Amino acid sequence: MLNQQTDLDRLFSALADPARRAMVERLSRGPAPVSELAKPLPMSLPSVMQHLGVLEGAGLVRSEKVGRVRTCSIEPGALSLAEQWIGARRTQWEHRLDRLGIYFESLPKEEPDDAG
Amino acid sequence: MLNQQTDLDRLFSALADPARRAMVERLSRGPAPVSELAKPLPMSLPSVMQHLGVLEGAGLVRSEKVGRVRTCSIEPGALSLAEQWIGARRTQWEHRLDRLGIYFESLPKEEPDDAG
Repeated sequence: MLNQQTDLDRLFSALADPARRAMVERLSRGPAPVSELAKPLPMSLPSVMQHLGVLEGAGLVRSEKVGRVRTCSIEPGALSLAEQWIGARRTQWEHRLDRLGIYFESLPKEEPDDAG
Repeated sequence: MLNQQTDLDRLFSALADPARRAMVERLSRGPAPVSELAKPLPMSLPSVMQHLGVLEGAGLVRSEKVGRVRTCSIEPGALSLAEQWIGARRTQWEHRLDRLGIYFESLPKEEPDDAG
């Protein structure tokens, strides 16, 4: 449980930055070399590498260096963990609305109010 | 677009803390006074109020003070925004897998290798 909490801390923290979300978005369409990830981002290559490190630390991205090219890929399992956590909250919320609906239907119906 | 980016920054950042996630989890089951939110958390009431401020700033929670009691409720729309962003990445990823599948199916089948 503690480990999953730490995983979720790292995951959501990694997703809380627009540059890192842009990298995840690009990699969701397929693997890419770091140079391609860096191209649309208004920052230096060392900054891109730092963001990449955060994404790798959160388990969202893996990278492999072959020769002089480091190629990055998405790790879809990590995104699933974040999606599951949010989905579980939505389910709780919807169950509550269902229970409220059942409660209100169980109340005695009021007669139409002629004075209304 | 910029506003949505800022919203997502705040949302994911707010969810990157276990105490704040515990508060969101409790509120997904229904509204609660601050004292009830604070009870299971190993921290002072001012710290709880600070976390509550972050959740309110991210649009995840709203609170209302009646008399001396501040009651908090979940704002399900904010969680939906985060869920949609992650879901859109999953869709991109799955489309890519579909395209890869179609590509591999389009390749000429190899004859069984008798030497194998």
